[in-house]
Amino acid sequence: MDFTLREGERLDDLVRDGMRIIQRPDQFCFSIDSVLLAHFVRIRKKDRIADLGTGTGVIPLLLSAFGAEDVAGIEKNPVMADIAARNVAGNYRERQIRIVEGDYCHPAEFSPPGAFTSVVVNPPYREVGRGALNDKAGVAAACHELTASLEDVFRAAEYLLAYGGRLTMVHRADRLCDLIAAGRACRMEAKRLRFIHSHEGEPAVRVLGEWKYGGHPGVAVEPPLIVHEKDGSYTREVLEIYGK
Amino acid sequence: MDFTLREGERLDDLVRDGMRIIQRPDQFCFSIDSVLLAHFVRIRKKDRIADLGTGTGVIPLLLSAFGAEDVAGIEKNPVMADIAARNVAGNYRERQIRIVEGDYCHPAEFSPPGAFTSVVVNPPYREVGRGALNDKAGVAAACHELTASLEDVFRAAEYLLAYGGRLTMVHRADRLCDLIAAGRACRMEAKRLRFIHSHEGEPAVRVLGEWKYGGHPGVAVEPPLIVHEKDGSYTREVLEIYGK
Repeated sequence: MDFTLREGERLDDLVRDGMRIIQRPDQFCFSIDSVLLAHFVRIRKKDRIADLGTGTGVIPLLLSAFGAEDVAGIEKNPVMADIAARNVAGNYRERQIRIVEGDYCHPAEFSPPGAFTSVVVNPPYREVGRGALNDKAGVAAACHELTASLEDVFRAAEYLLAYGGRLTMVHRADRLCDLIAAGRACRMEAKRLRFIHSHEGEPAVRVLGEWKYGGHPGVAVEPPLIVHEKDGSYTREVLEIYGK
Repeated sequence: MDFTLREGERLDDLVRDGMRIIQRPDQFCFSIDSVLLAHFVRIRKKDRIADLGTGTGVIPLLLSAFGAEDVAGIEKNPVMADIAARNVAGNYRERQIRIVEGDYCHPAEFSPPGAFTSVVVNPPYREVGRGALNDKAGVAAACHELTASLEDVFRAAEYLLAYGGRLTMVHRADRLCDLIAAGRACRMEAKRLRFIHSHEGEPAVRVLGEWKYGGHPGVAVEPPLIVHEKDGSYTREVLEIYGK
C-alpha cells in the first residue's frame, strides 16, 4: 500500500483487513467509539451510506471491511478530507468509498434529498459552554457541539435519508433523553439502543442508537456492551470487534 | 399477625420483615416488577410518598420495610383498596401507610396539588388495542392501558408532586421513547434509568426510571439488572432484593 504522509501525520494500523490509516495527533484521532459504532451499523445489500463528519475516514473504511459497497464520507475540514481521501486510496477502497468535502449542517450543498438509505455519525459530544474546550481547534470542533448540534445531526439525517432509512449514531449516554426528543422532532424514531459501559457495574458512558426515519414507536434495548475487564484489558467482545 | 381473609383470597409471604400479604388470584397478584420497583425507589427522610394504583398495597409495604415513614397507597378498585387496608393493618403499618380509595387519573379528587415529594407507580403496561385482553376484568385493568395512559401517569405525578419531587416507575423497556417524551410533556425529566433483562445477553424487558419534576436534562443509565441465571434460578442480586 502506498500512503503519502505529510508533516505532523502518522500511519496507524486499522487492524481490520490489514488496513492502515493516516492520522494527525494534533487534529483528531479515531477512538474506540468509532470502531464500536461501525460495528453496530446494520449493513444491507445496496445500502447507500453517508458518514457525517468522517474525519480520517475510519468509519467508511471499517464499513467497507464489513461489506458496505457504497459509502460517502462527508467532511467539512479540508485538512481532514484530504487525509480521508488518501486513506481511501492507500487502502484501495476508491470503488466503495468517496470522500465529499461538505458541511452536513448544510446538506443541500452536497446532496439531493433522500439520496441515502443509511446515515452514520459519531457527532461532537459536548454541548457548547459545557466542559473545558480543548485548545486544538480541530479537536474542539470534533469534541464539542461547536459546529453541529444534536438538532443539526437529525435534520441532516432527515434531509439525506430516503423515507424508512436508518440513522446510526454513538453519543454520550447521559444525553439519551435529548437524543430521543431531538430525533422525534425530525420524525426519527429510535428502534435499537445499546449502552456502552467502561466496566461492569458502572453507569453507561455511551449509547449506540439506530433511528428509523418515519418509524413507529417501540425500541429494542440490547444487552449492554462492556469495554474493559476489571484489570483494564479489553473484554472478549471488544477484542472480537477489533478483529483480534 | 391478624388477617381477615374473604372468599377467593389467599395469604402469601412478602418475605421482607416477616410481612404477609393477602392477594386475590382472580384479580392481580404482585409481580417481581413491584419488588424491583420498590427496591429502586430512593427514600429520603421526611419523604411523603404516593403509590399510584397500589393494588394489594405491596409497594407501600415494601417501602415501609425500606424505611419510608409516610406512604399513601392510592387505589381505584374498592375490592383491592379493602384488601390493601387489611394488609396494612395485618402487618401493623397503619402509622406509616394509609390507603386512599381514589382514581389517580383525577388526582384533585383525593389530594391538593404538590402534596407529595415522591410518587411511585407500576402502571398498566399494554396499550389499549395491543395484545390479547385478559378476561378477568381486574387483571385487564391492571395490565392494559385501559384505565390510565402513560400521559395520565405523568399528569398525575405533575399534579401530586412538589416542584423538584421524584417519580419512580417501572415500565416495558420497548416503551422507553414514549416514556421520555410523555415525561417531558409534563416537565418530568428522566434522571436515572436501569434496564431489566430476564437473562444476560437478551434484550431488556423492563426499565426502571426516576424522573425529576422540573429537572434538567442529563440521565444516568445504571448497570443492567439481570433477573435469571442460565438455569432459570434468580441471580444473586435479585435474591438479595427479595431479602434472601
